[in-house]
Amino acid sequence: MTTTKKDVQFINISETEGGESSTDGEKEENGKSKKNGDIKTQESSEKTDAQILLAATLVLDAKRGRNINFKTEEKFVRSYLFYHSWYLRWGLYAFITLDLSLAFIEKPAVSFEAPYWATILLEILCLVFFVFRFCHAAYVEQTSSFWKDTKHLIVLGTIILTVLDIICYIIWSQVAPDTNPVRWSRPLRPLFIINFSDGKQVRRAFRNIRRTVPEIMNVLILFFLSVLLFALLALKLFSKRSSLEYPNGDPYFKNYWDCIWDLYVLVTTANNPDVMMPAYDYSNWFALFFIAYVIVCLYIFMSIVLAAIYNNYKKNLKNEIRTSVYSKRRKLNRAFEILKDKVGSQYVITQETWNRLMKKILPTKSQQQLDLLLRILDSDGDNVLKKTQFINLSDLLHVELTEVTDRQTFLEHKIPSIYNHKVSKAIRWLVRTRGFRWSFDFLIFVNAFFIAFDLDDADMFFLIFFSLEILLKLYTFGPKGFITRFWNVFDVLVIGSAVLASIVEISIGASSEEFRTLDVLLVLRVMRLIKLFGSIQSFRNQNARFKVIIMTIVNIGPSILTYGGVIFVFYYFYAIIGMEVFGNKIHFYGYNGTDLDPLKKHCGNPKLENSNFYNNHYCNNNFNNILKAFVVLFELTVVNQWHVLSSGFVIVTHKAARVYFFCFHLTCVVIVLNIFTAFILEAFILEYSLQKQPRLESVVEAKIKELGLGIGLKPVTPVKPKNDTIELVENEEEPDGISNEPEDDSDTESIPDLSLEQGLRFHLKKRSRKKVEVLLHQMFEGEIDAEDEGPENEDYEPRKRRLTLETV
Amino acid sequence: MTTTKKDVQFINISETEGGESSTDGEKEENGKSKKNGDIKTQESSEKTDAQILLAATLVLDAKRGRNINFKTEEKFVRSYLFYHSWYLRWGLYAFITLDLSLAFIEKPAVSFEAPYWATILLEILCLVFFVFRFCHAAYVEQTSSFWKDTKHLIVLGTIILTVLDIICYIIWSQVAPDTNPVRWSRPLRPLFIINFSDGKQVRRAFRNIRRTVPEIMNVLILFFLSVLLFALLALKLFSKRSSLEYPNGDPYFKNYWDCIWDLYVLVTTANNPDVMMPAYDYSNWFALFFIAYVIVCLYIFMSIVLAAIYNNYKKNLKNEIRTSVYSKRRKLNRAFEILKDKVGSQYVITQETWNRLMKKILPTKSQQQLDLLLRILDSDGDNVLKKTQFINLSDLLHVELTEVTDRQTFLEHKIPSIYNHKVSKAIRWLVRTRGFRWSFDFLIFVNAFFIAFDLDDADMFFLIFFSLEILLKLYTFGPKGFITRFWNVFDVLVIGSAVLASIVEISIGASSEEFRTLDVLLVLRVMRLIKLFGSIQSFRNQNARFKVIIMTIVNIGPSILTYGGVIFVFYYFYAIIGMEVFGNKIHFYGYNGTDLDPLKKHCGNPKLENSNFYNNHYCNNNFNNILKAFVVLFELTVVNQWHVLSSGFVIVTHKAARVYFFCFHLTCVVIVLNIFTAFILEAFILEYSLQKQPRLESVVEAKIKELGLGIGLKPVTPVKPKNDTIELVENEEEPDGISNEPEDDSDTESIPDLSLEQGLRFHLKKRSRKKVEVLLHQMFEGEIDAEDEGPENEDYEPRKRRLTLETV
Repeated sequence: MTTTKKDVQFINISETEGGESSTDGEKEENGKSKKNGDIKTQESSEKTDAQILLAATLVLDAKRGRNINFKTEEKFVRSYLFYHSWYLRWGLYAFITLDLSLAFIEKPAVSFEAPYWATILLEILCLVFFVFRFCHAAYVEQTSSFWKDTKHLIVLGTIILTVLDIICYIIWSQVAPDTNPVRWSRPLRPLFIINFSDGKQVRRAFRNIRRTVPEIMNVLILFFLSVLLFALLALKLFSKRSSLEYPNGDPYFKNYWDCIWDLYVLVTTANNPDVMMPAYDYSNWFALFFIAYVIVCLYIFMSIVLAAIYNNYKKNLKNEIRTSVYSKRRKLNRAFEILKDKVGSQYVITQETWNRLMKKILPTKSQQQLDLLLRILDSDGDNVLKKTQFINLSDLLHVELTEVTDRQTFLEHKIPSIYNHKVSKAIRWLVRTRGFRWSFDFLIFVNAFFIAFDLDDADMFFLIFFSLEILLKLYTFGPKGFITRFWNVFDVLVIGSAVLASIVEISIGASSEEFRTLDVLLVLRVMRLIKLFGSIQSFRNQNARFKVIIMTIVNIGPSILTYGGVIFVFYYFYAIIGMEVFGNKIHFYGYNGTDLDPLKKHCGNPKLENSNFYNNHYCNNNFNNILKAFVVLFELTVVNQWHVLSSGFVIVTHKAARVYFFCFHLTCVVIVLNIFTAFILEAFILEYSLQKQPRLESVVEAKIKELGLGIGLKPVTPVKPKNDTIELVENEEEPDGISNEPEDDSDTESIPDLSLEQGLRFHLKKRSRKKVEVLLHQMFEGEIDAEDEGPENEDYEPRKRRLTLETV
Repeated sequence: MTTTKKDVQFINISETEGGESSTDGEKEENGKSKKNGDIKTQESSEKTDAQILLAATLVLDAKRGRNINFKTEEKFVRSYLFYHSWYLRWGLYAFITLDLSLAFIEKPAVSFEAPYWATILLEILCLVFFVFRFCHAAYVEQTSSFWKDTKHLIVLGTIILTVLDIICYIIWSQVAPDTNPVRWSRPLRPLFIINFSDGKQVRRAFRNIRRTVPEIMNVLILFFLSVLLFALLALKLFSKRSSLEYPNGDPYFKNYWDCIWDLYVLVTTANNPDVMMPAYDYSNWFALFFIAYVIVCLYIFMSIVLAAIYNNYKKNLKNEIRTSVYSKRRKLNRAFEILKDKVGSQYVITQETWNRLMKKILPTKSQQQLDLLLRILDSDGDNVLKKTQFINLSDLLHVELTEVTDRQTFLEHKIPSIYNHKVSKAIRWLVRTRGFRWSFDFLIFVNAFFIAFDLDDADMFFLIFFSLEILLKLYTFGPKGFITRFWNVFDVLVIGSAVLASIVEISIGASSEEFRTLDVLLVLRVMRLIKLFGSIQSFRNQNARFKVIIMTIVNIGPSILTYGGVIFVFYYFYAIIGMEVFGNKIHFYGYNGTDLDPLKKHCGNPKLENSNFYNNHYCNNNFNNILKAFVVLFELTVVNQWHVLSSGFVIVTHKAARVYFFCFHLTCVVIVLNIFTAFILEAFILEYSLQKQPRLESVVEAKIKELGLGIGLKPVTPVKPKNDTIELVENEEEPDGISNEPEDDSDTESIPDLSLEQGLRFHLKKRSRKKVEVLLHQMFEGEIDAEDEGPENEDYEPRKRRLTLETV
């Protein structure tokens, strides 16, 4: 506690030195103008508002990692800020969503099919907004860089093509409505997701793919050559043996194209061992051919494809980190150059300029908070910012700052007399004990057994208990403290939905909509058991390892959404094409053979009689609307039986349809899925090495810790894993004071009830909660020199270092 | 050329300084004893032969990476050397092979079934040798360490169990021959491969698996918990809907065990989308359940399993490298301690001791060669070896040393007048040109077309031409130069076999054995086309990338054999068990339903009627002999349709048989195959980073280069990829002289015809030809201090370093 006091004093001292004397921010609010006048007497040139605005925009760009080279005149800067305003951004998202959703009501519609003029009108509406957005971007950005940027060109091209397509379609459908006119520009729609500048993450993933493809081209060429060779051999070996055929009578390796197709399918393992059996039955020796093929083309080449992709992914990731760190620094440097004043022999940012800047960047913060931010950056305490200090600003802006009064729970704030009563305190003590947590963990186990043995009637009891748990925790930790824990949020969602669904079920009755609410309830009931994972995490001995795995899964969550976006782009593209090509060729009418109308037999297409597709009951896998198409594409992504699925569509159309399925497999499975695997590999290995690493923190965080201003700042102590185990106890609420020695076991006791203290505190994230990208940024910033702005050339190639066992 | 001269002079100078004056090794051979006498006058204590022998043994152990802690008395050392003699080692391999091969003639025999006493007699023979080998090891090794070594205990245990089993079996088959007595110790046989000290690579791979399993246990526990939860949910959702069933009428998610099994199979993707279709046909929403399951359990968890395995593999690899480097150093240090003499104030190894030592280690080398070796190690030229110099001895012993006269081709040596005739020279010049290579590459293309269009008659023409190519190359480069190139060896094998097969075919006639020789010829004909890969490698522009891939494949070749060994051990284990459990339950009699004897219908087992197993024509996939069993296990490894295969065996036995297939999948697919993938990932990334790295060489290689004594030493120039392209031109023959500047383009012209020069030369391997392990060794040796012998503790944990972008 003494250290806390001292640090608070230190803050006060530096405040008086800086010419200001108050820590009560609210009162100081109106003193700002006066202060500005005082400071103006220093030898600093007055900055224009336009300069401050430009600098603030640069800082904001640096913080958010934006990379638009906008024009620097004031009107353009204002327009640029407007360009990034949340309503325009969300408007764009909304219009993109609308544009993509048109597929639901366009011709092979999911349920309601809109007339073609309605969908075209909606699409024109979207296009108008896109054109507006595009022109806005062209207006604010430097003309030279704007027209060199591929993403703008692609947007423009897509808009033009779509307009052309609409015109074509209208003419076509007027002239010859019976020839089934095609809206051929629809597969291009997802390009808007990637190429508007807001889809940064997805664009980055696509950039990664674009850079990876040339690198793995060599492996793929070798791979396809091997397939061609083996196919030639298969043709030679099997085509002359006329007795060989598949069980259903299909020809067995009778022409070269079929050989290639069958062997390519074998690489995906989908037709193993069926493709081997006829030859194997003929002579045991032929098994050797297939075994050799599988070992070479599947085990060796496919592993090498993964290795090449992983290697590239790693390289690209590092380059992205490097370029984004350098670009952030360049922006902050530009801002510094604009704001700097000569004080003594140095160029610095004065406090006055700082205040004006921050009023632009954080208009809602009080003067006291701005002063505190300055003090964090100002590591030498002279109340002006040097370049090397200013550069940390964007890191600082990422750290959330609140007043400690916020940390009081809502009830404590409103009805302190009741909240601090003896009974209430006892309850709160009880909730914080381990026994409380353990008993509810045990209750989940009991719940599991009840569910397993179909004792559904007791469920109301569990629901009430778990709701009670949520309320008690909410009471004890307050809404803010409660909501920051992953498992609490999970609880609220699952239990809350269950309560809602129960109410719905009771009110409208169970059998109304064929078990649907019951099913939802059931799912929610089982989902409750997921909390067991959280319990295991804290019970197991080697929980450090469990933690790595669970933290990896939690941390990669948002990035998985990015890959979900990538997959969605591909799916949409292939789905639209699939709907045009294979739509309404196959229908699902059930399989009760004899009862059916002859037209509805064999998936409504007599060609499918005796096909594997029909015999496997795959009729529901069709391209008759976009949702069905997505399900088919998902099945193709899982790969198994994809050749049977494609055989069905080949039978109803033409053998050339194989190209569609082959391309889908190559792009979505071989490339995208392997990049996804590479991403998980890298994320896991990073989390793992970071767990073993002593603290890794930015300059700003170190300074905040030094000043003892952190909240939720748990020293990460690999030597004392006990601390990490009490994940579920809300110890994140408790700041660790100023004890920089994590080995000091007494810190938990010596901490005062911080909710009684006044002052400002920063919310520092525990390291394990940070995104991998942020950690990589910090690592790289720790590596380079404070002045280093990186090479001019964008294609940064790191200097050669000696290889060591650690670096390979 | 001037530099070469100078360096040669330098060698001569250092020779005279060292007290010796001759470079003509052969003449000096008998001068050895005299010299010994001269040097004895120095103040060195005479070493006993036993000491020299012990030191030599330690050096040999360091060179070969052996780790046996043998007794140091002379008789034990001699016995130890005998233990490692090649005939005992190969004897062991032979007996292990014999022991394992017994499965061919034991009860479910492949073709000839030997009586049980014969196989038991053969097995006893093997056991006798194993016992002898075991006792020999116990005799030479320190007793304390011997009995602590798990591998010895496992060998002993396996021997005892086998003896017990033999006794049991004999008694059992005498008492109750009708109860089908079982030789239960047979699955243990592959343990001999792993646990005799000679199976180093395989044992290392198993050690890797043993160390990896606890690490991935956590992931697997989480994974299985997820499967259990989803299975519970599936049970709840689908079991009450009685209309749901599989197309063939099987129950659909009706009991918990089946749910778990079906969902586990879904993780392997083998029953996708079949497992989803009934529910999907019932309601489209159920697709969400399966999609969620596949994303969580397949894409996320299985990727994390791979990540955990890869991470461990990397860690283990680095630890293995560290411990083996340190153990090598300790051995050499022990040898040094034994051999050292005090000269002046330093402990060194005198030249006399060196000569005596090397006569033990390399008894076939001439005195001149030994002197040269000393000079390489003796970096300061004082003719005695310090400890830090002596430590490089094992690296030096790995570099092959030959006299330049060897480099003359055989014919040049024997009939120089003809060989150096003008015509002969012209031919040799022709063969060395690019045109020669290109025309034969073109011929392969032509050959490919002939094969593709079934123009088999022209094949004799191609065969003659390709044979001619081999002969010409052999004539030009000589046997030694010819045989060191991968593609040449490949050519000889493929063309040679084709010539042989053609002769056989012509002599005994084609139709004798149902196309068999013709098939072999066909395979060989198509294999010829593989040489196209080599041509692409040299034609393509970005051949550096191609090279990485091809070098990776070539370099990982031997290690793949290691993993082949690992897989074989598992296969043998499961095959024997499978033969005992499932042997002769399923037979293959063909599928011509009506013609068949009723007993032979449905794979000879009426239970299989209407099963998927029979309908898919899988009857030939059975466990009726060890080769059939291996094929089934391979199919299970490829995973697709494994649930259909297992369903067949479940139908003919019991549902518990699923455990067998589940265990096989978990061990061989989830663990071993992922380790294999990890191995390829790491090998590829290492090759890739090493390609981009400036030279990485051991101290010894640097010294050899400095002295200009290298042969086949091609500077690796990432800046000038042109050099790397002429892979097929036998430029490895040409040393690059002493030009240390790889950028010097004139090196190819200025090189003299070395075959005319006299002297000794070392064969340095091009870096790209080195094994990854060797490179890692060199990297780590470059990292640590010359004196560093590593920590005493075997579990070496590297010191914590700061994480950088390069190290993660």
